[in-house]
Formats: sequence, structure tokens, C-alpha cells
Amino acid sequence: MFMQEILNEYRKAWSISYAISLLGWDLETYMPQEGAKARGEVFAQLSTLRREKIMQLKENVEKLRDEDLDDFGKGVKRVLSREIKYFLAVPKEIDEELNRLTSEAEIVWRQARKENNFLKFEPYLTKIVELERKIAEKLGYEGHPYNALLDLYEEGFTVSDADKIFSYLLPELKQILDKIMNDDKFPKKHELEDVEYNVDEMKKVNEEIIKLLGMPLTRFRLDISPHPFTVKISADDVRITTRYEGKDFKETMFSVIHESGHAMYELLIDKSLDMTPVGGGVSSGIHESQSRFWENIIGRSREFVSVIYPILKSNLQFLEKYDSEDIYKYFNVVRPSLIRVDADEVTYNFHIALRYEIEKRLIAGEIDVKDIPSIWNEFMEKYLGIQPKNDAEGSLQDIHWSQASFGYFPTYTLGNVVAGMLYHNFPTLKEKIKERDFDSVRDFLKNKICYYGSIYSPKVLLNRAFNEDYNPSYFVEYLKDKYLA
Amino acid sequence: MFMQEILNEYRKAWSISYAISLLGWDLETYMPQEGAKARGEVFAQLSTLRREKIMQLKENVEKLRDEDLDDFGKGVKRVLSREIKYFLAVPKEIDEELNRLTSEAEIVWRQARKENNFLKFEPYLTKIVELERKIAEKLGYEGHPYNALLDLYEEGFTVSDADKIFSYLLPELKQILDKIMNDDKFPKKHELEDVEYNVDEMKKVNEEIIKLLGMPLTRFRLDISPHPFTVKISADDVRITTRYEGKDFKETMFSVIHESGHAMYELLIDKSLDMTPVGGGVSSGIHESQSRFWENIIGRSREFVSVIYPILKSNLQFLEKYDSEDIYKYFNVVRPSLIRVDADEVTYNFHIALRYEIEKRLIAGEIDVKDIPSIWNEFMEKYLGIQPKNDAEGSLQDIHWSQASFGYFPTYTLGNVVAGMLYHNFPTLKEKIKERDFDSVRDFLKNKICYYGSIYSPKVLLNRAFNEDYNPSYFVEYLKDKYLA
Repeated sequence: MFMQEILNEYRKAWSISYAISLLGWDLETYMPQEGAKARGEVFAQLSTLRREKIMQLKENVEKLRDEDLDDFGKGVKRVLSREIKYFLAVPKEIDEELNRLTSEAEIVWRQARKENNFLKFEPYLTKIVELERKIAEKLGYEGHPYNALLDLYEEGFTVSDADKIFSYLLPELKQILDKIMNDDKFPKKHELEDVEYNVDEMKKVNEEIIKLLGMPLTRFRLDISPHPFTVKISADDVRITTRYEGKDFKETMFSVIHESGHAMYELLIDKSLDMTPVGGGVSSGIHESQSRFWENIIGRSREFVSVIYPILKSNLQFLEKYDSEDIYKYFNVVRPSLIRVDADEVTYNFHIALRYEIEKRLIAGEIDVKDIPSIWNEFMEKYLGIQPKNDAEGSLQDIHWSQASFGYFPTYTLGNVVAGMLYHNFPTLKEKIKERDFDSVRDFLKNKICYYGSIYSPKVLLNRAFNEDYNPSYFVEYLKDKYLA
Repeated sequence: MFMQEILNEYRKAWSISYAISLLGWDLETYMPQEGAKARGEVFAQLSTLRREKIMQLKENVEKLRDEDLDDFGKGVKRVLSREIKYFLAVPKEIDEELNRLTSEAEIVWRQARKENNFLKFEPYLTKIVELERKIAEKLGYEGHPYNALLDLYEEGFTVSDADKIFSYLLPELKQILDKIMNDDKFPKKHELEDVEYNVDEMKKVNEEIIKLLGMPLTRFRLDISPHPFTVKISADDVRITTRYEGKDFKETMFSVIHESGHAMYELLIDKSLDMTPVGGGVSSGIHESQSRFWENIIGRSREFVSVIYPILKSNLQFLEKYDSEDIYKYFNVVRPSLIRVDADEVTYNFHIALRYEIEKRLIAGEIDVKDIPSIWNEFMEKYLGIQPKNDAEGSLQDIHWSQASFGYFPTYTLGNVVAGMLYHNFPTLKEKIKERDFDSVRDFLKNKICYYGSIYSPKVLLNRAFNEDYNPSYFVEYLKDKYLA
């Protein structure tokens, strides 16, 4: 009874979210430049409206009793309660302050990065960290204050979970990296990284890849934007973007595969959950497991390279002198590097560990924003044995902190960890890739993860699928199989 | 005091309209096919939300006293009062019934048109007419019940106005048409109507035309959709579409000029009115005056053809053997024809008069829906001396009735009438076109019409600009200057 009322009323909030999603997509793809100002006003107004509509559900949600609910109902109650809790704890004024601050901070960050000048960004980041600490206090937490923020991106995930994962993962990765570096099976650099491509030809490659992966073209589209992203408009309308930088063709191709992984997650969710509070992917980490499974474990495999080799060859003339094995090597260059988004799958998690350590200390108040550059360099040296020449290739490289996304970075590593768990549980994966049987891959992912939307919290979802939650050992197993076999 | 509160609160309704506009644009341009179902639900939810937000202004709007208000304030009061009056008179349930009915009716209409079968559409149109008559009763009217519906598209415009316009216009047009037909200065058919073009080449022509007209490319964009339209997202984000049918290149070019005229109107409105109730164009007729002034009076003029001739010539190889005068003739073929959207500027208003006469009688209850085909044929014979072979080229040709847009058709003729008034009041127009001085054209239109948004009702706006309202004699003057000189 309450449930039906909640679901009916929820459609208002859902419709507003739907509009916000489309407005966001349009902002990055087709909006005329000067439309930005009005768009900002609309985002603010619609967010406020949405908050109102969610808060109007409070009374009915509080009346729900677990004993009357099935799994779907419990999921609805859980997801709405979390959002209501956030709105009760964090008043509108703080959200608005954060929005104003981050829109300004993002512009300053861009300028500071251009000028290699951390000092310019420092006062903004200081205010953002203050506000994030305040939000953590308002939300409340057990144990570490950073837990309150981690939970916003990955429900139930804590500093103690993260510490356990990184303390296991980093020494293992270090060992694997050392072995790769002392060997020449995988190159440290590949000449194809510098080769330019024709954008129209590359578009054709990406379109053929999308078809090969089986993306449903009546429910999905690919556009161009400055930074690749995925957005779900509705269960039957999920969109991704890529960019064409003109050289190093694997970049745009892997962004298409990565975002297709995110899109696939949303497209495989039980359609009967659409327009309900549990109709979307459950967390950033679980989402990232899908994109990384497709991008890295499938996309960078020898089997996948063989499958797409004819597509590449027939569209990109400059590949004439390269065989399939050359392409495989080019896709799997391994080397310590300074920029996270360019990192390979072996070194990538060091970049995350570093950011995690800094965020944890900032939110605990153990370090100040001004200390970031020196701590950054210290960790880069310790983890990868290299140091940035300047802040642009150091602590100013990512947009996340200017957007106040504290707690987000660790979910990238969770994505790798869970992708490893999927790998371990799908022993016939390589056969399926060889046979171009991506339907079976999709069925596997759907049954394990995607179908349930947000009905179960991430840890419950993982336990249902694998009888354990975030276990990093399978990701290590995957890397060893691939790089040390 | 109330005014400031009203304007602040109005931004919520405005933001919802903004979202609805973008969702509409996306539906016609980029939305993946299967996204339609959820999109329908969102339109319904957001419309309901918008109605709520407008109705929340009621109390404050009623407190506004004319003596305390400047023109802007009076405009705000007028526009909001009209909308509140509609919502009070027409309950949500009727609007919802109309939405359900028209979404179904549009599908049936498409099928009926395909099959040349008016009987298939008849029961739906009968229900729509019943509902429209009910809405007219609920809204109330002085004189003819059709006045209530006309007012929704053209504030203050009545059957008595329309009768006066058509009774003057039709004999004049008849006389002009007869003279053209008995002469060979303007062709009845042109071979270029059958010539095919390359879509990419034609896209380049349209892009150059847009630049020539001075469309502001940071606040405007052109896309492709099945039916050309203009949508205003905000004061700095106005979009048009065209379609490429592959032959008869003037069709896509004139749809671009036509829609650019609509867009120009919105782009020339005083920017300080954005996000207020008076920030948009004031009525369908006034809007149509802008599009038709650009499309017909400028676009089909000998001077404009000379200006664009090099653009056409350099992009469309098949024009090699045609000179500027040939193109002028091709743009100005005149002949009685059955399809409204293909009609030339001399015969066009007969198509409208016919629809007006039918709508007026239907809403008065003087005829039934089943009588439409025979009345249609009768009027076609009387006005243009021709008759449709079937309903597809007769009464099933337009989408409007399936969408319940009763009262809309007459505004097309108002567009021609007001465009004629603009022509009469801008004696240097031909010089300006020759000099490619479209800035001066824009200034003229801005000062006369566009700048004021909806501050003044259409008749007041026209009186301020021309000391009279809809006067059809200038349109006749324009046609005589052009066709009989």
C-alpha cells in the first residue's frame, strides 16, 4: 500500500533525474556554447525540485517494515532511506554552497593546471576540503570520518576495507611490475603510440567495435565529447561518448569499449525496475567493474585482438606492416608513468593508492592541502620510482578534487578488484571471445551483477554472486596469468 | 514585492519548460528509437509538475494591481493570468485525456493517410472535436465558440477578425492568381523540382546560408529531423532542424531560412526577459510573420537569389547551366496544387481559408467530422479549381487535427499578413538585401516586433509598430509588386 504510493510518487523525482541526465548529456555534446549560463540555473532549480520530491516520500518510507517486504521492496526502502538520510543531514544550503564553490574551483583548477601552479588552486581546494569534512560530520560515521564520504560512492565500503585491499595489492603489484620490467615480453613503449589516424576512418572502427560487442543500436548511441562518459537516460536509452585526439588510436577505441561496459550494465538491468529507485547500477565500484572487465580483461586480451584485427586492418592503412601480435603488444605497453589516465593495468592501482592515502589524511585533518604536492612526490617515488617535474603532471592532473569528489578514486581500484573476481568465475571467457560469443559474456555479467540494479547493496550483491566481497587476489591472479605466464 | 516573489518562483516552472523543450528536441533528433516510451512518461510527469508550479503563483498574481506595474509587469500579469485561467477552466483530467487521445490518434492518422482511408481516422477525430468543443465551453468566449480556441494560439484574435481578413484577401488573391496563370512570367512547373542533389553538398549550402543570414553560431544550431522545426531552449540556445529529401533542393533550403526566421525572433528578444513569463515570442501568428518574412519576402526575392547564386553554383554542380534568373523562376513557381506545404505564396492562403472554414463549422457543431471530405472537395474546387483524387491528398494531409491543434491553421495566414505589413514598412529592404546588410533587417525586425517578447499582446504590439493590427492589404500589395509589376 505505502509501497505503491511511494513508487507512484517517486516517478516525479525520477522524471526530474531523467531530465537532468539528458541536460547533462546535451551540455557535453551539442549545446551551443552560450547556452551554459541558463543551463546552470536549470540544473540548480531541478535539483532543488528533485530534493523536494524525494523528501515528500519520507513519511511513507518510514512506515515500511522489512518483514512486509520482498527483496525489491527492501531495496527500494534502502535506497530511498539513504537519500533521505543525506538530505536530512546535509541541508540545501551546504549543497548549494558546494555547487557554487565547485563551479568556480573547476575553472581555477584548469587555469592552475595550465600554469603548473598549485598555489593558485590551493585556497579553493582548502575550502572544498573544509566543506567535505563538514559534510562527513553531518552525515556521521563509525570509525574514520572518510567512511562517510566513501559510502556516498560505494555503499558500506570503509577505510578498513580499503586499507586491507591496498596492503595486499601493492606488494603483489610491485613484484609483478618488477618482473615485467626485467623482461622484454611486454614493451615499455610502442611506436604506434605516436602514429596519427584519420578521424573518419577511426569512427568506422569504433562503429564496427560497437556492433561486434552487440550494443543494441535502438537503445544506445555513441557521440563525441571532450571527455568520454556514459549516461543512462532510461532503461532503453543509454548513451556513451568518446573523443578523437588524432593519434594513438587505442585511446579512443578503449574509451569506447570502457564506456560500452558501463552502458551494458545499465542495459542489462531487469527492465521491470525502470522508473523505480533501484533501477540503476548500484555503486561506482560495481559500475567500474563492468567497464574494466570489457576494456581490460576482454579488450586487451590476445583473443580479442585477433577478433578485431581484420576490422583495424581494413580501416587503418597505417597498420599494414603490423601483425596481430604487434597490436597486442601496443595495447599492453607497461611502464611506470606519471599520468593516471594513461596508466596500464599493472601500474594503475598505484595511482589510486596514492590519491586514497592523501584523501584519507585530508579528511582526517592529519595533513593540509598545502602539503599535497610534497606527499604526492613522496608516494610516486615510493610506489613507482618516478617523480613529476611539475604540479600539472602531479597533483593537478585530475579534475576530481575540483568537483569535490572525495571518496570516488578508490572505486576505480574496486572496479579492477571486482573485474578480477568476474575473470576468476568465468573460466571459459577466452573461448567465448575467440568465438565472438559476446552474448554468453553478457549473460554471465547479467546473472552475476547487472540484472539486480540496486536491489542489493554492493557487498550483498557480491556475496550472492561469489560468496565473498571485494577480494583482490583474483585481480592479482589475472595479472599473473597474463603477464608472467 | 509580489512581483519579485512571482519571478523567483516562476523560475521553477520555467526550468521545467526548459527541460521539456530539450526533451522534445532530442526526441526528434538523436533519441534512440526505443527511448520513446519512457520519454512519454516523463513529458506527462513534467507537464503535471509545471502546472502545479504555475498554479502556486495564482495567489500572488491576483494581488498584482495594474496601477503599480510598468509594461513589463503588466505583461507578466497578463501572460500568467491567461495560463492560470486555462488551468482553472480545463482540469488536469481533460488535458490528460487529450494527451492520451492525440498520441493514439496521431498513429491512426498516419495509418489512415497511408491507406487513403478517412473512415479509419473519423472516430478519433470525432472524439477530438468533442473534446475541443468541451474545452471551448470550459474556457468561455464572447461570440463564436471557436474564439476560445483561436485565442490559445493568437491572443485576442476572433472569428470576426478572421472573416474580415479572408473576405478581403481571397478575391484579391484570386485576381492575382488568374493574371499569373494567364501570363508566362512565372512558370507553373520547373525542371529543377525533379533534380536530385547530394546531401553533403546541400548541407554545405545550408551552412553557408545560415552564415550569410548572420545566425549567431554560439547561440544556435542546425540539426536534421523528419519534420523541420524551431525550438527555443533558452535566450542563448535556439535550435532549428531541416530534412534532406534528396531532390528539389529549394525545399531544404527554404525550410532552413523559414526556421531561421523563427529562431531569429527568439534570439532578438530583449535578453533581460529571459527566464520570465514574457521571455518568448508572443503568438503563433507573430512568430509566423518572422519566418515567412525571411523565407518568402527575402528568400524568394530576385535580390536574394543574386546574393546566394555563387553559393549555390559552387556547391551544386547540376546548376551549371542555370543562371540567376532561372533559379529565381524555380523558387517562384506558381500553380494551384493540392498539398498545403508545397503551395506557393499566392495560393497558400486558400489552403488555410478552407481549413479555417471547416474548423469554424466543426467547433460550432454545424457540421460533423464525416462531412469533412465532401466540404474539403467543394472548397478546393471553389478556391483553386481542383479536387483531390483521395483523402491522402485531401483532408488527411496535415498532422494538425490528430494533435488537436484546432485554432492553429489561421495563424499561418496571419503570418503572411503581418509579413506584408513589415514589407510595407521597410521600403529599403531590397537595397539591404543587395548589400547583404542583414544586420539592418534584423534591427528593423527587432525594433518593430522581436525585442518585446510577450510584453504586449499581438494586437497591442502591432498597433505600437504600425498604428493598426492585422491589415491584409499590404500582403496583397507585396504580391502585386512581385507578380504583376
